[in-house]
Amino acid sequence: MRPSTIRLSLAVLLAGSTAAAAAAKPEDAIRYRQAAYTMIGWNFGPMGQMVKGKTPWNPGEFAQRADRVAALAPQLLEGFPEGSQSGAKTGAKAAIWTDMDDFKAKMDDFVRQSQALAEVARSGDEAKAKDQFGKTAQTCKGCHDKYRSKD
Amino acid sequence: MRPSTIRLSLAVLLAGSTAAAAAAKPEDAIRYRQAAYTMIGWNFGPMGQMVKGKTPWNPGEFAQRADRVAALAPQLLEGFPEGSQSGAKTGAKAAIWTDMDDFKAKMDDFVRQSQALAEVARSGDEAKAKDQFGKTAQTCKGCHDKYRSKD
Repeated sequence: MRPSTIRLSLAVLLAGSTAAAAAAKPEDAIRYRQAAYTMIGWNFGPMGQMVKGKTPWNPGEFAQRADRVAALAPQLLEGFPEGSQSGAKTGAKAAIWTDMDDFKAKMDDFVRQSQALAEVARSGDEAKAKDQFGKTAQTCKGCHDKYRSKD
Repeated sequence: MRPSTIRLSLAVLLAGSTAAAAAAKPEDAIRYRQAAYTMIGWNFGPMGQMVKGKTPWNPGEFAQRADRVAALAPQLLEGFPEGSQSGAKTGAKAAIWTDMDDFKAKMDDFVRQSQALAEVARSGDEAKAKDQFGKTAQTCKGCHDKYRSKD
């Protein structure tokens, strides 16, 4: 096995991504992951407004947006293949790739909490949904604090 | 009812979007819809490579990506609220908002064809999946030809 093949295989294993993602150009992977975060934020924002009471509680919309976030969350990791540390403007810190196991664990936290949020939102229990929204937001913060550049 | 309220209500009806989307800043809606297209393209690209035989046929990956596209497709329309004709760099033609009924019909075509693609991909029938991929791609083209600026 040639070194380049080994490197590619490791990248696939480390990032948990598909061969297609590992083969993507760094700038495309960066654009993709930023798109995924944009879509998550677009849905998370109005949920937060409801949780804070700034807009009326709308259980149907809240559940739909929670479903979308839960579906988008597992698609994030594919946007961080080895080699996509740079190539376009990115707020992703290099520590993501040196501490990939920890980064993946934090991603898993987000995936799990967002799935729990979608489930509780579907149940229609407003208090539990608001509580679980806070827990999910904490997993965003936990990862951003460590791995997202503030610049 | 004040004229501004009527305008907002019409925008909600026309765009089929939620109140949250209609209330979004134009630049945020533009960023959101571009993100949705980026995610669709990220998944559609490797599927196209398989269909063309440029990468090996991988039924599991094809089905997963088809599922994602089918889930993303119905989220596009929310990114075209009234007022988001401009506000950031956009390839969306103004005709979208003057011909909203036709634009929505074309979006519906894409949603339906992408759902059919996800179903046939799940069945594992390679020939049918490739055929349905072509039909889905045609709905992309049908809308882009009319409503996306080439500049």
